[in-house]
Amino acid sequence: MIVSVCSLAKRSGLCTVQRAMLAVVFRSAVTKYKGLWLPSQTVARAMSSSGGATPPYTTLAISRPTESITHVELHRPEKRNAMNSAFWSEMVTCFNELSEDPECRAVVVSGAGKLFTAGIDLMDMMNNVLQPEGDDTARISWGLKKKIRKFQETFSVIEKPVVVAIHGACVGAGVDMITACDIRLCTQDAWFQVKEVDIGLAADVGTLQRLPKVIGSQSLVNELALTARKMYADEAKSSGLVSRVFADKEAMMAGALQIAGEIAGRSPVAVQGTKINLIYARNHSVADGLDYIATWNMSMLQTEDLMKSAQAALEKKSPKTKTYSKL
Amino acid sequence: MIVSVCSLAKRSGLCTVQRAMLAVVFRSAVTKYKGLWLPSQTVARAMSSSGGATPPYTTLAISRPTESITHVELHRPEKRNAMNSAFWSEMVTCFNELSEDPECRAVVVSGAGKLFTAGIDLMDMMNNVLQPEGDDTARISWGLKKKIRKFQETFSVIEKPVVVAIHGACVGAGVDMITACDIRLCTQDAWFQVKEVDIGLAADVGTLQRLPKVIGSQSLVNELALTARKMYADEAKSSGLVSRVFADKEAMMAGALQIAGEIAGRSPVAVQGTKINLIYARNHSVADGLDYIATWNMSMLQTEDLMKSAQAALEKKSPKTKTYSKL
Amino acid sequence: MIVSVCSLAKRSGLCTVQRAMLAVVFRSAVTKYKGLWLPSQTVARAMSSSGGATPPYTTLAISRPTESITHVELHRPEKRNAMNSAFWSEMVTCFNELSEDPECRAVVVSGAGKLFTAGIDLMDMMNNVLQPEGDDTARISWGLKKKIRKFQETFSVIEKPVVVAIHGACVGAGVDMITACDIRLCTQDAWFQVKEVDIGLAADVGTLQRLPKVIGSQSLVNELALTARKMYADEAKSSGLVSRVFADKEAMMAGALQIAGEIAGRSPVAVQGTKINLIYARNHSVADGLDYIATWNMSMLQTEDLMKSAQAALEKKSPKTKTYSKL
Amino acid sequence: MIVSVCSLAKRSGLCTVQRAMLAVVFRSAVTKYKGLWLPSQTVARAMSSSGGATPPYTTLAISRPTESITHVELHRPEKRNAMNSAFWSEMVTCFNELSEDPECRAVVVSGAGKLFTAGIDLMDMMNNVLQPEGDDTARISWGLKKKIRKFQETFSVIEKPVVVAIHGACVGAGVDMITACDIRLCTQDAWFQVKEVDIGLAADVGTLQRLPKVIGSQSLVNELALTARKMYADEAKSSGLVSRVFADKEAMMAGALQIAGEIAGRSPVAVQGTKINLIYARNHSVADGLDYIATWNMSMLQTEDLMKSAQAALEKKSPKTKTYSKL
Amino acid sequence: MIVSVCSLAKRSGLCTVQRAMLAVVFRSAVTKYKGLWLPSQTVARAMSSSGGATPPYTTLAISRPTESITHVELHRPEKRNAMNSAFWSEMVTCFNELSEDPECRAVVVSGAGKLFTAGIDLMDMMNNVLQPEGDDTARISWGLKKKIRKFQETFSVIEKPVVVAIHGACVGAGVDMITACDIRLCTQDAWFQVKEVDIGLAADVGTLQRLPKVIGSQSLVNELALTARKMYADEAKSSGLVSRVFADKEAMMAGALQIAGEIAGRSPVAVQGTKINLIYARNHSVADGLDYIATWNMSMLQTEDLMKSAQAALEKKSPKTKTYSKL
Amino acid sequence: MIVSVCSLAKRSGLCTVQRAMLAVVFRSAVTKYKGLWLPSQTVARAMSSSGGATPPYTTLAISRPTESITHVELHRPEKRNAMNSAFWSEMVTCFNELSEDPECRAVVVSGAGKLFTAGIDLMDMMNNVLQPEGDDTARISWGLKKKIRKFQETFSVIEKPVVVAIHGACVGAGVDMITACDIRLCTQDAWFQVKEVDIGLAADVGTLQRLPKVIGSQSLVNELALTARKMYADEAKSSGLVSRVFADKEAMMAGALQIAGEIAGRSPVAVQGTKINLIYARNHSVADGLDYIATWNMSMLQTEDLMKSAQAALEKKSPKTKTYSKL
Repeated sequence: MIVSVCSLAKRSGLCTVQRAMLAVVFRSAVTKYKGLWLPSQTVARAMSSSGGATPPYTTLAISRPTESITHVELHRPEKRNAMNSAFWSEMVTCFNELSEDPECRAVVVSGAGKLFTAGIDLMDMMNNVLQPEGDDTARISWGLKKKIRKFQETFSVIEKPVVVAIHGACVGAGVDMITACDIRLCTQDAWFQVKEVDIGLAADVGTLQRLPKVIGSQSLVNELALTARKMYADEAKSSGLVSRVFADKEAMMAGALQIAGEIAGRSPVAVQGTKINLIYARNHSVADGLDYIATWNMSMLQTEDLMKSAQAALEKKSPKTKTYSKL
Repeated sequence: MIVSVCSLAKRSGLCTVQRAMLAVVFRSAVTKYKGLWLPSQTVARAMSSSGGATPPYTTLAISRPTESITHVELHRPEKRNAMNSAFWSEMVTCFNELSEDPECRAVVVSGAGKLFTAGIDLMDMMNNVLQPEGDDTARISWGLKKKIRKFQETFSVIEKPVVVAIHGACVGAGVDMITACDIRLCTQDAWFQVKEVDIGLAADVGTLQRLPKVIGSQSLVNELALTARKMYADEAKSSGLVSRVFADKEAMMAGALQIAGEIAGRSPVAVQGTKINLIYARNHSVADGLDYIATWNMSMLQTEDLMKSAQAALEKKSPKTKTYSKL
Repeated sequence: MIVSVCSLAKRSGLCTVQRAMLAVVFRSAVTKYKGLWLPSQTVARAMSSSGGATPPYTTLAISRPTESITHVELHRPEKRNAMNSAFWSEMVTCFNELSEDPECRAVVVSGAGKLFTAGIDLMDMMNNVLQPEGDDTARISWGLKKKIRKFQETFSVIEKPVVVAIHGACVGAGVDMITACDIRLCTQDAWFQVKEVDIGLAADVGTLQRLPKVIGSQSLVNELALTARKMYADEAKSSGLVSRVFADKEAMMAGALQIAGEIAGRSPVAVQGTKINLIYARNHSVADGLDYIATWNMSMLQTEDLMKSAQAALEKKSPKTKTYSKL
Repeated sequence: MIVSVCSLAKRSGLCTVQRAMLAVVFRSAVTKYKGLWLPSQTVARAMSSSGGATPPYTTLAISRPTESITHVELHRPEKRNAMNSAFWSEMVTCFNELSEDPECRAVVVSGAGKLFTAGIDLMDMMNNVLQPEGDDTARISWGLKKKIRKFQETFSVIEKPVVVAIHGACVGAGVDMITACDIRLCTQDAWFQVKEVDIGLAADVGTLQRLPKVIGSQSLVNELALTARKMYADEAKSSGLVSRVFADKEAMMAGALQIAGEIAGRSPVAVQGTKINLIYARNHSVADGLDYIATWNMSMLQTEDLMKSAQAALEKKSPKTKTYSKL
Repeated sequence: MIVSVCSLAKRSGLCTVQRAMLAVVFRSAVTKYKGLWLPSQTVARAMSSSGGATPPYTTLAISRPTESITHVELHRPEKRNAMNSAFWSEMVTCFNELSEDPECRAVVVSGAGKLFTAGIDLMDMMNNVLQPEGDDTARISWGLKKKIRKFQETFSVIEKPVVVAIHGACVGAGVDMITACDIRLCTQDAWFQVKEVDIGLAADVGTLQRLPKVIGSQSLVNELALTARKMYADEAKSSGLVSRVFADKEAMMAGALQIAGEIAGRSPVAVQGTKINLIYARNHSVADGLDYIATWNMSMLQTEDLMKSAQAALEKKSPKTKTYSKL
Repeated sequence: MIVSVCSLAKRSGLCTVQRAMLAVVFRSAVTKYKGLWLPSQTVARAMSSSGGATPPYTTLAISRPTESITHVELHRPEKRNAMNSAFWSEMVTCFNELSEDPECRAVVVSGAGKLFTAGIDLMDMMNNVLQPEGDDTARISWGLKKKIRKFQETFSVIEKPVVVAIHGACVGAGVDMITACDIRLCTQDAWFQVKEVDIGLAADVGTLQRLPKVIGSQSLVNELALTARKMYADEAKSSGLVSRVFADKEAMMAGALQIAGEIAGRSPVAVQGTKINLIYARNHSVADGLDYIATWNMSMLQTEDLMKSAQAALEKKSPKTKTYSKL
């Protein structure tokens, strides 16, 4: 994902022109998509801070549709929510804060504007991040690994349950991002593209690692990653990448909020324990997973939420966030 | 799954009422389902011991539809086959016996009455199993882990190939159970619910460990486990949880018997070797799995079943149990 | 897969007749299939060396539909492309050569004649490979393991990206083979059968290890492997075994070539890195996979292909093999 | 370890004589050792039930040197504590009971008579356990695996901390046994022998798995296992197999009791947590081990033993069993 | 390691007195040691900032004995270098900075005053960190896990090669710390104690995970961890915990500097690659480790340090830091 | 280990001189050692083909001290047995042949001339193997990985039990080699050096992966690998790298032959099973290792060697190779 384009350019002496070229090229890849921006998507609009990114963020708009749900919106619509260097660090700050925020029990992630994200912002990357560092190949390599690891960590800080709602396009690093979320929804007009092979590299921020564990057909995973072809909503649903498809963004945002609400209304002890153990299970044998959850639950079963859950149900109340104290 | 409700209740001094509440609550969760009990399910009825559980079992009815197939029926229909403490130990006894029984070559598991199972029997659990033990948090925790491990082992004793046939509802610990079986079938009216998050805990008898390895959409697994929503037969089929859906229980039981017959009629050397290696492969890398089966087959290929299989086929006989000697 | 039939036969004194029996039996299993061989499959025909296998191969026909794509055709049509001992060693030679051939950037595998492959050639196996060796059970076992390992390695030498195109039938060892390929396509009339349990053994050349990691429904995997039932194209598609189904072989071969062309036209640095990391990810935890690709890309991102990819895209050229130098 | 000698013998028709031969042979291997049985080992004698095995055991003498320490003595001195079939099942019963016995906080294992153990009792094995079962090689193999797994489990039931005290000789299955214990002590006259290669098999009850994780020199492990040479006390100490060497059995038993007392006097929450996490660490990466103990301690740190430990220390009392309540 | 003593104390209502008690108790454990503080340890003194901790640190004194070696001294001598909450966060800051500092090529860690460290500062812990948080057992547990993970991470930030030099005593969390370093040295008067079991808990900052992978005798590891007995310098050497023992601190510091100088003078590409791959190898199979280093070295072998190393050697110069450019 | 020195040199334009320099430098590293070549080492001489390497080998002398023991001698004494490109391929050929040779039951490896080996032959490497290949960094990297993997495989082909006897010096790749052998012996004058860090790289042919699993002190492993200091015989023994030290080469060769004879005289079923399972255990958890050997022994216990072992022992014969038939 990280592209040492600049270093190559510098050596061959045509850096300035090339940079512009690269940016143009990449942009054109997503402009082909002529999505319509429907003016009536009122729910979605209500969910974002209307005017722009939420300070101190410049690429994210944060809002609270309900007390216990945080909405994180990728918010550089004029740049198709391309991920620039600000984004990569703001994501870490944002999700670290959400991890520490006991009020936040579920997160919805979506994109502002015409599409979810065009992926990495190559232009910005070149100007800010990808200066070649080091006196020889080994030292340049060392520096590159440090940067890749940092990018990878961006999507590993997601501790709270996350519902991601994708409309329009989800390209390149966008796929890395959504495979690190818990529940994926999309609109009927959404498409997905593991773009990296098209620009000469193997995807390295998580797609190749998580996609095969996220969807059921290895043949499809291979085809997507090796040919960079687009996958549309129906195939995303039938292959299991998303669990639901909605007619349009408005319906999807309502659906995302509803699912997030279901999660936020339940015991945070149960919800967080479930998320942590699902991730653990993905990476370990069944035997190791069973041992781990038994160790986990030897304390967690001593929660008062068990009794509260019973009471709530008895009184035929739907689950409420306030029933359970913070975790 | 294990709920130390009672210990909490005891501390807060409202144990008696609360216990009743909890039981009512949980029961109501499944009573909403108004399944019709069709009187004409003759095959299914024929398969179970008509009058009730088979002594010495009180929760299971055991029968032998054919010489080589054992039918294990969850048989507390008046309690919706809720899993009480008797069930947990009878399952172990029953499947341990089946493991040692060379006549039994395949097992069909189903539920008596209106639905497959409502999951754990909270009322019974509270009265029998879940007394808080230990003088401090650490000691209570220690005791809880021992109990969870015991519950987990209930579903790990299943050595013979098992076809599980689900009708009506399969809730909570029922999902833990069916993910530990080999082949899953259901009726058109069946639904599945990872219920645990609703009662304040992370599922700990196998669902979170096995479900992600059993179906192809991690997004769907997460949604089911984090929101406790019901999944109906069609989604169970398209997601791969079950491999076939039948119109009704009668058809399903016939289908289950037919599949079990296919298995029972084949070489037990081949069948057991296949099951063991499939489970091994799920928990290991491809390289480790290949090494293991090569080691396995260095003896197993020296079986006379190879020649017998050829002869049976030559004579155009369908495979028969008696062709192969016991394992 | 390896069958020490002969040793058993020898002991029981009826080797000659039995061998013939076995062969007949197995052949009949696939002859039931009355596939039509359409005379107009011109593309497919064009892709194979018209007359037969390509010397020095006796079971494979090798051709180059384009400069960068190699077509490997199983070519014993009169024997339904059954895998004899020549095949097992020719596959290794062939794919080892392809691995070393920098011109070859993608491979298409298909079968000549009426079907993809009937699986292992039992008759040939018995006469050539499966002579019992060793003075006691332990020594026979030792020899068997060596042979199994050798067979397993046949499908592990596949380093280049492989699109496999299946028509008609794919039986037994054929399934082992296709699960080791990257992208699977099939015709509407194709069917798949994990045949081994029918002939008295647990599949040991990769099916049991790879199939559960290749498709999304463990219930289906178990059913296929334990009952040896056929799976047809539609289920192969919905379960994710294949990523596309075509009306007939001609269309499929065109599709396979098109996909292979997409791959061959892209940066080999990107393509090979993607394949290697996808396979690594399948066998390791997400954390290990992320570390590995970061280590991989610390050198691979220093490729000139990044800039070339940009230029190609800028000039609106579709990706071309010649753009990128050999790997 | 399990030897299907009898089945071989039966086939070759010389079973009776051969059995006797085998027994004689094996016995002679340990009779070469002319250990002196010192009459004054009063402590050791006091620790065992003087007359013989403790009913219902026939091979074990159980005593309680202190309230919280259990002494398990291998007690077939006239047979050099050879492990017969009674032993293998009594060990399981005994350690399962100790696991459930909250009074028992540490266990000392030693051997009655002239030496620790001569290993498996081949004579008994042949008459009781190793009847060949099954109609062909595959079925005999299946039965053998079941038996080996059962033997292996004998040494996996050891949940409490165990100090094992070895004098004289520790041969074959004895080495399997002591590597499954926690702390190993020996007398100056002790020797150890991985005997299995001498009788034609690879050790299969744990030695090959645990020895390389128990001592620091792989070269030494390989030499011992491949040549069956004896290792004496000094090398056992310098290689780390034992942590202490004592002049004679009396001194060793006193030392074993002292160490067991140190353990029994400490918080059982701390002791059991330490043992469990040490075993976990041996089989997992450092990262996995750190995660596991953090999960473990999230409940265990809430023990009252922390405060009690402080008080005991403040009052300058040495740790006492009674300080801490049972686990 | 983390002790929720205060929460327990609070509940039982004797918090103030108990706190004092605990502190006194723990302190007395290390005061028994009557080490002499030799006035002539000039080298050691020269290495530390004479007056005290180096601002902004309050527990660490940082100095640069040579341009490329950083000396980190635990510097709360009046508190026996007990690890208080300031220490835990300063360690992270300090080692993160060292990781980013290209001038620093090796680190020496030692302790100021009479001993290396008395381990965790219980008194400080109680007042600052260990307030019970959460409304029920589950929530307190959740908070505890977060804290333990944070402590664990303190010793995982160590990226540069570290030589740790231990004199006097190294107790409790001190053992956790040194097992996370690369090379361990000690004085003749040093002793080590896995103290945690004495205060009622299982060590959870790394000792139980790393010690078994660091020294060769599992029996010794178990004995140390289960009985909390002291291990003195000679046994530390023979067991492999330390690789060298020195007569006194002055000699040891000279030795540590010499070893650090050897490391700092070599190619940082070689040194860091070696450290990273040694750690990787510890946690993975040999096969995985070989694949990883091959991937690592495909870039790292393209370093100019290879040629520089040759030149330096040719000119018979001992290796110098300045020979190699920064990493 | 592989050094792309030449590519670097080429770029900087001083290839010819530098090459010579590098070779001189490296040679001088081992010439410092003034070992005496004792004329009376008759056994050792007898073991090697007197005149030189054994055709078709140019770097190895192969002999058969007994019928069942093969002696492989590194035989370029005039080049200090430095490993040139001929060596790397001859090793593979040689050990592959030994693997297939049923007469060979144990192997002794040693070095001709003054020392065991000076490690890789840099001069030869530069002229033959290490030409930079590829148009950019990525392609050079790709080629380097292929070469490293090939080198690594050289030491993985060792299937038979190998006793390696080291005298004089064992440097660099020599350490990679001996850690891949089973039993290590050395003379009193032997020394070992993990040399790679001295020439600017991390050792990549096995030392970093195997050494930590071969000796018991991680601190020592780290020190050796990070500082390239020499380790002499006594430390090699106490750390467990070798299991025995001999006064001189003659005594060592006699000892090596004696150990190899012990191995060759035992049942090859037992010996090979032991070796395979020891290696398996090193790379897997105890639980996985126990399962594997149980699967292994389900066939291997059906060997006639069990009875033969008994008979041999009964007749008080020492074990003989001819007793057991070939494997």
